[in-house]
Amino acid sequence: MGNSPEFTATAQSPIRVAVAGASGYAGGEILRLLLGHPAYQDGRLVVGALTAGGNAGAKLREFHPHLLPLADRVLGATDFDTLSGHDVVFLGLPHGHSAVIAEQLPDTTVVIDCGADFRLSESADWQRWYGGDHAGTWPYGMPELPGKREHLIGATRIAVPGCYPTSATLALAPAVAAGIVEPAVHVVAVSGTSGAGKSLRADLLGSEVMGSVRAYAVGGAHRHTPEIKQNLATLTDAAVSVSFTPVLAPMPRGILATCTAPTTATADEARAVYEKAYADEPFVHVLPEGTLPSTGAVLGSNAVHLAVTVDSDAGVLVVVAALDNLTKGTAGAAVQSMNLALGLPETAGLSTVGVAP
Amino acid sequence: MGNSPEFTATAQSPIRVAVAGASGYAGGEILRLLLGHPAYQDGRLVVGALTAGGNAGAKLREFHPHLLPLADRVLGATDFDTLSGHDVVFLGLPHGHSAVIAEQLPDTTVVIDCGADFRLSESADWQRWYGGDHAGTWPYGMPELPGKREHLIGATRIAVPGCYPTSATLALAPAVAAGIVEPAVHVVAVSGTSGAGKSLRADLLGSEVMGSVRAYAVGGAHRHTPEIKQNLATLTDAAVSVSFTPVLAPMPRGILATCTAPTTATADEARAVYEKAYADEPFVHVLPEGTLPSTGAVLGSNAVHLAVTVDSDAGVLVVVAALDNLTKGTAGAAVQSMNLALGLPETAGLSTVGVAP
Amino acid sequence: MGNSPEFTATAQSPIRVAVAGASGYAGGEILRLLLGHPAYQDGRLVVGALTAGGNAGAKLREFHPHLLPLADRVLGATDFDTLSGHDVVFLGLPHGHSAVIAEQLPDTTVVIDCGADFRLSESADWQRWYGGDHAGTWPYGMPELPGKREHLIGATRIAVPGCYPTSATLALAPAVAAGIVEPAVHVVAVSGTSGAGKSLRADLLGSEVMGSVRAYAVGGAHRHTPEIKQNLATLTDAAVSVSFTPVLAPMPRGILATCTAPTTATADEARAVYEKAYADEPFVHVLPEGTLPSTGAVLGSNAVHLAVTVDSDAGVLVVVAALDNLTKGTAGAAVQSMNLALGLPETAGLSTVGVAP
Amino acid sequence: MGNSPEFTATAQSPIRVAVAGASGYAGGEILRLLLGHPAYQDGRLVVGALTAGGNAGAKLREFHPHLLPLADRVLGATDFDTLSGHDVVFLGLPHGHSAVIAEQLPDTTVVIDCGADFRLSESADWQRWYGGDHAGTWPYGMPELPGKREHLIGATRIAVPGCYPTSATLALAPAVAAGIVEPAVHVVAVSGTSGAGKSLRADLLGSEVMGSVRAYAVGGAHRHTPEIKQNLATLTDAAVSVSFTPVLAPMPRGILATCTAPTTATADEARAVYEKAYADEPFVHVLPEGTLPSTGAVLGSNAVHLAVTVDSDAGVLVVVAALDNLTKGTAGAAVQSMNLALGLPETAGLSTVGVAP
Repeated sequence: MGNSPEFTATAQSPIRVAVAGASGYAGGEILRLLLGHPAYQDGRLVVGALTAGGNAGAKLREFHPHLLPLADRVLGATDFDTLSGHDVVFLGLPHGHSAVIAEQLPDTTVVIDCGADFRLSESADWQRWYGGDHAGTWPYGMPELPGKREHLIGATRIAVPGCYPTSATLALAPAVAAGIVEPAVHVVAVSGTSGAGKSLRADLLGSEVMGSVRAYAVGGAHRHTPEIKQNLATLTDAAVSVSFTPVLAPMPRGILATCTAPTTATADEARAVYEKAYADEPFVHVLPEGTLPSTGAVLGSNAVHLAVTVDSDAGVLVVVAALDNLTKGTAGAAVQSMNLALGLPETAGLSTVGVAP
Repeated sequence: MGNSPEFTATAQSPIRVAVAGASGYAGGEILRLLLGHPAYQDGRLVVGALTAGGNAGAKLREFHPHLLPLADRVLGATDFDTLSGHDVVFLGLPHGHSAVIAEQLPDTTVVIDCGADFRLSESADWQRWYGGDHAGTWPYGMPELPGKREHLIGATRIAVPGCYPTSATLALAPAVAAGIVEPAVHVVAVSGTSGAGKSLRADLLGSEVMGSVRAYAVGGAHRHTPEIKQNLATLTDAAVSVSFTPVLAPMPRGILATCTAPTTATADEARAVYEKAYADEPFVHVLPEGTLPSTGAVLGSNAVHLAVTVDSDAGVLVVVAALDNLTKGTAGAAVQSMNLALGLPETAGLSTVGVAP
Repeated sequence: MGNSPEFTATAQSPIRVAVAGASGYAGGEILRLLLGHPAYQDGRLVVGALTAGGNAGAKLREFHPHLLPLADRVLGATDFDTLSGHDVVFLGLPHGHSAVIAEQLPDTTVVIDCGADFRLSESADWQRWYGGDHAGTWPYGMPELPGKREHLIGATRIAVPGCYPTSATLALAPAVAAGIVEPAVHVVAVSGTSGAGKSLRADLLGSEVMGSVRAYAVGGAHRHTPEIKQNLATLTDAAVSVSFTPVLAPMPRGILATCTAPTTATADEARAVYEKAYADEPFVHVLPEGTLPSTGAVLGSNAVHLAVTVDSDAGVLVVVAALDNLTKGTAGAAVQSMNLALGLPETAGLSTVGVAP
Repeated sequence: MGNSPEFTATAQSPIRVAVAGASGYAGGEILRLLLGHPAYQDGRLVVGALTAGGNAGAKLREFHPHLLPLADRVLGATDFDTLSGHDVVFLGLPHGHSAVIAEQLPDTTVVIDCGADFRLSESADWQRWYGGDHAGTWPYGMPELPGKREHLIGATRIAVPGCYPTSATLALAPAVAAGIVEPAVHVVAVSGTSGAGKSLRADLLGSEVMGSVRAYAVGGAHRHTPEIKQNLATLTDAAVSVSFTPVLAPMPRGILATCTAPTTATADEARAVYEKAYADEPFVHVLPEGTLPSTGAVLGSNAVHLAVTVDSDAGVLVVVAALDNLTKGTAGAAVQSMNLALGLPETAGLSTVGVAP
């Protein structure tokens, strides 16, 4: 695929990229990253159609005034006519809406879905957690998970992981794979509000979220639970259990996931496992001992910061992961996947430098 | 004690209350509550000396412009001369500073310590977590914990619980006492920044904390861990283990503690245990099924909101507690304890109504 | 009216208070204040019907989980049947909806409207800024404005001022009345988001408002402009011009209004004018020289903090006012007005103590 | 200068850049921008010495965990030995500290001062507002101000403007230059907290700033006032007066400046003046009519968004400017100036794309 004529950077035929759902947060973040992508800046990649559902016909400026170079672009309809003729189509649609569009696009088009439609491998999981027919399973856009990167190179259909599963999986995978924990994991992940999208819900109003922290979907009720479990289950023969509680914090972006699991390993042993597992990963950074992650340090970047330690009194491994839910948790993973699909450098257009303070 | 002449509300001899450490957040919140206390409003209770360490000599206005009726009060020194002659002395001092003052005050003075000095029952715990000599153990100002209220009535020395232990203990005590969980608990508690006090630390600057969530004291390194463990251990013969991770969120006040522990109980069984345990408690409110706690709903109040459920897939009890770290987590518990000590109605001056949004 | 049997506090016939629009922010804040009102606490005042529009039928808990004592109250419909039979009816309705309800209620019922319907004295102003027929003009619930308090005592129809006009008027009235400024005033008022109510607008989502400040209704386009001008015009024979720009800040509550106007007075002269004007006002506090107001210091209180100074280089009076838009800016003024209407102490249930930090 | 050997991009001799004051916010932001600069990414520019005052000896990670590629750099001392041998030296030092260092560096070194030392042209202004001897006046790093860009090309000493003066000057300069306003301007500028730097002051703690807005330096007491006045005075023969009030808002970054001045122009006339003035400016964007600026839309970018309108009732021009105080307000202007000094494209490494939400 990376060698096919469509994707070769030439002045004659730059890579044409469309974004469906461009008025939403995932779509906006994909566009932000594309505008800073070296292939965009030197003309090898162009931003084609931007589409929306109810917002079609409006200018991008109304939704993303920060995307100044594209401010006067008019949003088209999310349909085949508008999205065809592109080399890459990003889908930032509500869950359950991707399959219809994806089926219409040619097999040679790289379709990168930020929704949940093609993440789960078990149809029963889809039916239980989302309902309706399971659309299928696509290569999973988390190159850092053992065995996944290879399937992304040259892929033309990619399912971008959920933001919570990205944090919990990267925080726990090395320990589970190395067998240093009992895979009965507890995850409490604190997220910024953009993870909930732009839904016009009273509980997402600024007046409600500022100055307050709240839990939601407690008791294992969040749809990301089966995705976390599925990821960890690929790494061990033992039965995996996941207790997952999401918490909403008063900030727009960021996830901080505190992950615990029973262990008999020492802190040094645990750290060694993580440092080895992520030694060659460009975006996953195991922090030095005593240094603690904050979401502020990864804001706007594709980096994941991990603190790894052991509470020897409690016999518990504690791993805390920080990432930006919109970048590494969504759009950054999408662009990273696009890079792999197209044969571009995996890190192109993706920074490990956050915007702080 | 409640019958002794000093504490009888008469025009001749109102209750005289002093606050040491009045320029700090705990001291300020105690004063806020006292100003709204019915005994203050009808003259049965007067605010006497307000003292500080390095801030002595300045007006209260410089530290607490919100306490308008006391704005022009000048802070005295935290010493015997200034604090003697009061019926009640609240101590809002750095850990380790309370014992010296407390020893100088008469046994008949009600001394209520918001610091950690007299919370722990084991000297070894004090030495490990705080260092130096253990000052002793005072009645523990958490009336809701079985067996504690009786010791607070008429007490003249009271140790106010830590804010994190209040959230975790109230969230877990009923389940541990009823034996419906294995007492291997995981607590991730998200706190507002006022819990760290007014320390002039770069990591507490607004620029650093806004827009960012971070963990600290991971791996069981927080000093509140032994206090949580001590509280739960009084309720069971089984060995208790506590994995506790505090998280700092961008808000001034509030704690949301997500507490999990292995269980075979059903959600209904668990809820029944909690509803029974707290049926008569004026400040602990078990939320209806499906309702979730937020710290915003308890801001400025002495209420604790609890959501109780079970993740049956993971076999885990999940209890989420929300409280205001400065009110129920510190100053509210202190005033509640004062009320019990003086024979006033336990709820006097303490509201279950939060300030929202 | 204050002497009429309905409003006399007796065990037989407590004051019955209804709140229309109880699911909104104004309604919620009125209820918060009523729950802390001494007349409520000793049974002389009871909270009767709570009504809503589209939210009728739901429990108050869904909208105001902080109002624990009323959490299980079911909201009724905003109509005559539900609202009749009360001594006081607070209206927290969208602009233009109050007149219909008010007309149906007896003249002896104290109706206190938090909307704009009855604030403006000129029909032309109403038509220009709100459109449609002007419903009329009621006594204006700002007792601190010269000549207004007298009309509120015993009144049965009261128009509560807008939040911005409260800040700008109290900040500028003494100078305009004393003639120490040219009444060509510039007001830039920074507000928390609750001022916009609970409208489900994308620009009010937490993700949009946090970490960002924005102006709106620039160029004199805000509907509160004529109300500010009307208030100041009552104090001077000179022509008044008002440049008013509202700014939205990332916080739920609070207004900080920076008001400037040309002056030849000195700072001392200006301060003397303000100190005299507000010497007897319980809620307006002129800060000592060099002390600056913050909205945090008045949060949840009915206090207004004013800093008064003169920029002698520019020849400009600078007055900065801080208040809580939901309390003194809306519900506090409503309760203060109710107190005056019923012959209760004006300050009953209203605090000058803020909730900070 | 752009042609001198030192600054020619060759593999043999890349441009060596030092940052003094690297542990502060200005220094951190300069580094963030340099890490994304195309000259850094292709090796033509290298980051040399990073220095600090009291923080010398520590790793950059402790202060800027978001700057991952430089995290393990050790900070040197801010002295000649450490800073010599560089082609460009950025100074992010406390006011009054730049002159000593600058004098020691060769005339051929490009020294870019983010402090106030060399901004003011009048020694009397320096003495009144900062005290002590006036160090001198350097070319002013605001290329958009008429006559300034030419002096920056090839310059080796550059004074970066203050953040507030950048917002107010860009908002008012076209109107003052065109003579469509009386130059008696009122500026109320709301800023994020990073503008105050990392000073360990109690009033900058997160607990104090979150949920609250406050004014400071009212009455023309802010040191940026003379800089605004100086800038505007270069554009008109009329006497300029500036009433400037800064306001601190609960966000880390951003300035929103509301600027008003008497005018008889219409809104269309005013907009035409601004559109013409900034037609060729890459970073100043006059928003379409009816569109309003927010600081969120320019976060992390070098863009300035301007809304221009006229309040015809009040006879006042209203211009609202949004920028990021750390980027266009400090470090972005510094890098823009560096680009001009070195003969690089003015926009290199500087984006008009913000990070939102």
